[in-house]
Amino acid sequence: MLEPWPRLDSTVRASYEVFRVREDRCRSPRTGQVHSFYVIESNPWVNVIPLTPDGRIVCVEQYRHGIEAVTLEIPGGVVDAADETPRQAARREMREETGYDSAGLVDLGVVAPNPAILNNRCYTFLAPDAHPVGGQHLDGTEEIAVTLVDAAEVPALIRSGRISHALVVAAFYLFDLWQRTR
Amino acid sequence: MLEPWPRLDSTVRASYEVFRVREDRCRSPRTGQVHSFYVIESNPWVNVIPLTPDGRIVCVEQYRHGIEAVTLEIPGGVVDAADETPRQAARREMREETGYDSAGLVDLGVVAPNPAILNNRCYTFLAPDAHPVGGQHLDGTEEIAVTLVDAAEVPALIRSGRISHALVVAAFYLFDLWQRTR
Repeated sequence: MLEPWPRLDSTVRASYEVFRVREDRCRSPRTGQVHSFYVIESNPWVNVIPLTPDGRIVCVEQYRHGIEAVTLEIPGGVVDAADETPRQAARREMREETGYDSAGLVDLGVVAPNPAILNNRCYTFLAPDAHPVGGQHLDGTEEIAVTLVDAAEVPALIRSGRISHALVVAAFYLFDLWQRTR
Repeated sequence: MLEPWPRLDSTVRASYEVFRVREDRCRSPRTGQVHSFYVIESNPWVNVIPLTPDGRIVCVEQYRHGIEAVTLEIPGGVVDAADETPRQAARREMREETGYDSAGLVDLGVVAPNPAILNNRCYTFLAPDAHPVGGQHLDGTEEIAVTLVDAAEVPALIRSGRISHALVVAAFYLFDLWQRTR
């Protein structure tokens, strides 16, 4: 019943460092009419839940320019599509942002950050047995504080809005569902 | 320890119908250096979980131009900031997209779709006692199929990736956490 919309053409309108905007002209399979849609293109994103042997999550706090506030999140970032897999990117981001490492990342699932206007996916991993291996390696604009949070406190932090990043909330649900099937 | 970055100036770079892109120049409180950040501005978004008296979720399927695929989601959309609240927008979107209604929406929480690059919030509601009141009211580019899904099946649909929209996954976690505290 629901069919894809054939894409007649696609034009990049502008590039903004970590994303770019393109305009697609597509034909409705139902009406035959042509409409324009704007799509934000980005490399894939990753999130990783570093879990320590004593049941704590290695979280990060940083100032976020989108909402102009300091957030509590898990490590994550953008896959360097040219030369790494999502799994490699997740481990790299965990190392760089927290100084923790874990050899055996577990694949918790994949979400689409916003299938209406974003073309990319976000890959979520669990890093069991996370342990400190050194300092942070931050780039010039990153200022990140590492905070350990008891895993049992996470649901209350989400309910209260202290953890508010939708992709982090989704990551914790994937972790929750994974635990139930163990 | 973590301080906000003072914003020196802000310039709208382009408008793309449902969002626009601005460039902020901000000063690092740590280094004093000035950096540019691109922010996608959008009105608030809403999501609503319509729950029928017999325990089914009123879901919607539609072709999504970002990922170029048909998705399974809950009703949702953009708040018309000029003249409605998130609660009103959620009820309107449910009515328009599914033909179902429910008088007493329950506030499940608020997330930030992406605090790094998006300035808006997404408000999530539960619509208990959802019941059909009429047909859909779709705009010119909307083609939406209504599908009832047993609420007990939702975790498996998320784990399998059949439900992949991050904001919908986050909404179902907020619903799950709300149910635990009842």
